[in-house]
Amino acid sequence: MPPTFSDLSRRNFLKQGIAAGAVGSLATASLAQQLQVPEPPGRKLGWAIVGLGRLSINQILPAFAKCEKSRVVAFVTGSREKGEKLAARYGVNPKNIYNYQTYDALRDNPEVDIIYIVLPNGMHAEYTIRGARAGKHILTEKPMANTPKDCEEMIAEARRANRKLMVAYRCRYEPYNNELIKVSRSGDIGKIRVVLSDHGFNIGDPTQWRLNKALAGGGSLMDIGLYSLQAACYTTGEDPIEVSAMEFTDRSDPRFKEVEDVINFQMRFPSGALAQCTSSYGYAGQSRIRVIGAGGWAELEPATSYTGLRMRVRLGNRTEERDLPQRDHFAAEMDHLSDCVMQNKDVLTPGEEGLRDLKIMTAIYEAARTGKTVKL
Amino acid sequence: MPPTFSDLSRRNFLKQGIAAGAVGSLATASLAQQLQVPEPPGRKLGWAIVGLGRLSINQILPAFAKCEKSRVVAFVTGSREKGEKLAARYGVNPKNIYNYQTYDALRDNPEVDIIYIVLPNGMHAEYTIRGARAGKHILTEKPMANTPKDCEEMIAEARRANRKLMVAYRCRYEPYNNELIKVSRSGDIGKIRVVLSDHGFNIGDPTQWRLNKALAGGGSLMDIGLYSLQAACYTTGEDPIEVSAMEFTDRSDPRFKEVEDVINFQMRFPSGALAQCTSSYGYAGQSRIRVIGAGGWAELEPATSYTGLRMRVRLGNRTEERDLPQRDHFAAEMDHLSDCVMQNKDVLTPGEEGLRDLKIMTAIYEAARTGKTVKL
Repeated sequence: MPPTFSDLSRRNFLKQGIAAGAVGSLATASLAQQLQVPEPPGRKLGWAIVGLGRLSINQILPAFAKCEKSRVVAFVTGSREKGEKLAARYGVNPKNIYNYQTYDALRDNPEVDIIYIVLPNGMHAEYTIRGARAGKHILTEKPMANTPKDCEEMIAEARRANRKLMVAYRCRYEPYNNELIKVSRSGDIGKIRVVLSDHGFNIGDPTQWRLNKALAGGGSLMDIGLYSLQAACYTTGEDPIEVSAMEFTDRSDPRFKEVEDVINFQMRFPSGALAQCTSSYGYAGQSRIRVIGAGGWAELEPATSYTGLRMRVRLGNRTEERDLPQRDHFAAEMDHLSDCVMQNKDVLTPGEEGLRDLKIMTAIYEAARTGKTVKL
Repeated sequence: MPPTFSDLSRRNFLKQGIAAGAVGSLATASLAQQLQVPEPPGRKLGWAIVGLGRLSINQILPAFAKCEKSRVVAFVTGSREKGEKLAARYGVNPKNIYNYQTYDALRDNPEVDIIYIVLPNGMHAEYTIRGARAGKHILTEKPMANTPKDCEEMIAEARRANRKLMVAYRCRYEPYNNELIKVSRSGDIGKIRVVLSDHGFNIGDPTQWRLNKALAGGGSLMDIGLYSLQAACYTTGEDPIEVSAMEFTDRSDPRFKEVEDVINFQMRFPSGALAQCTSSYGYAGQSRIRVIGAGGWAELEPATSYTGLRMRVRLGNRTEERDLPQRDHFAAEMDHLSDCVMQNKDVLTPGEEGLRDLKIMTAIYEAARTGKTVKL
């Protein structure tokens, strides 16, 4: 039996008290008394980062400085050297540097509460399943996995282990996208008729894992087009009931031997709202969501970049720019999961949502391949 | 036999000289000599406006003041009273006010060189054919007709009569859309990958002819979605080879008993460029074209409004706004046709282009109905 939430929580709580050399009433209180005490303010859960690539180095590790409930305590990396350098920079104990062979030993490390899987898509399933078996809560990068079947196995394993499983849909945790959701569903712009969403960029190095089918599961859709898909779902608050799609990939381009470049798709929602989405690894950077209602529209552009988001809302004949606080997306999503673990609450973007999206993307690929609308 | 181009041109030329009371070398020269003289500067062809609805009254008639080669000389209207009022305002001789029964008598009016058909879509074919038979050149509002078959008959009749037939795609004659075409095809933004185009508005009065299937031929696509379609074609400079589409229409809305509301479509072009277009009579006003290349993008928004167009071009990390002269679209298109008639040149948007678009729209309707990609 893996440890339950309360086991872990208790263990960490006790450990923190001891590590800090706490004395007096709290440290000397009975266990029963201690368990009645709520989480002390400032408590942070321990995170292990699996995969020290660019996203981890440039975004995730620096984000811990902005976290209130999360701290980095362990690394899993194929490069001991890189692990040691980053451990020194982020105050991680070198004994907490694991590799892919020793990964399962995280089970015996009570400092680690949550594992953040920042590996190529094709490895998310294995490391989520092994991580849950090691008794840890899991945050996995998007897309959740390469196939719906993998997602189902991940969900089943997390459930068996009684661990939380969350997909790193970071835009759901920052102010601009939340304001867009609020405006879209408020009725201010009227009934939603059409959601436009465009995400893509001109990808470089043909040898990167994102262009390898086995590691990435697919091309632009699995990576960047997923933002378009997500946006249509979270602005409407609905799941699509059918999709159609059109793809263009220049197979003579060395980047696109295995995966798709442009894949544009249409989605129909139960309310009647239609989404019109694009996704590309071959066009100049796009990051845009526009929600068009009967009486106005709301737009983010850039919508999903790490920083610098902008919002415009048009009501009647006036277009207004809305300035909101810019928040670190990674800090926000990590703290959300830490908080849900500490308070045993449901996460906003659970494995079930990742599974839904894999099912939709599978349908989009089928629609593009067959030239037929696919029902979900 | 209807008069040929040179008959008409000559007749008007002589008439003008006489009307102006011209004397001296030009007026007294032999006919042979006169025919060698190029069109005198300032010469304007005479236009008959067929249908005095809102578009004629608010846009087309005022535009003549900005024309250099076109003047309004006749009206065709069901309301003699309205015709007389407007005749007084625009200096049209009341004898040149026709109705739909006397329309064919335009044949006997040498003041009229060109007929501009501003009637409901379902009447374009009949009035184009009768107008060409009356020996006049034709500008017809868009869409050219309700069906490809009607377009073919219109083209055949204009050819038989040796008259020019142009579709009023006004955006092709104004600076912003032309700059967009130039930038899109220049290579500055790289190879075109995706064209986004969104056109629509929230239509009012349920009793208007645009919501009547017989008069309009269809719903938003035939009217406003056609701008999205056109934009994708003229920015790429290509004709689509396949389309897919998704429609949503609330049939309980009194406006949409007969025609569609939202119809979104995708198009594939021979170069590999894909278009992603929306069209609606039920969403808040949209008028936007964005052409996305591998290395940048160019956008108009508003793109096709009568006035106030704006352009942004993004190259590298810089987005620049481009200010161009705002030109009256209607004056520009009318002068284009006058000029083509005077110089016997081909028009930029001939009947063949209107026919192409009707074929594409027919395919879009089929794709929406069947849920299958339709090849063109």
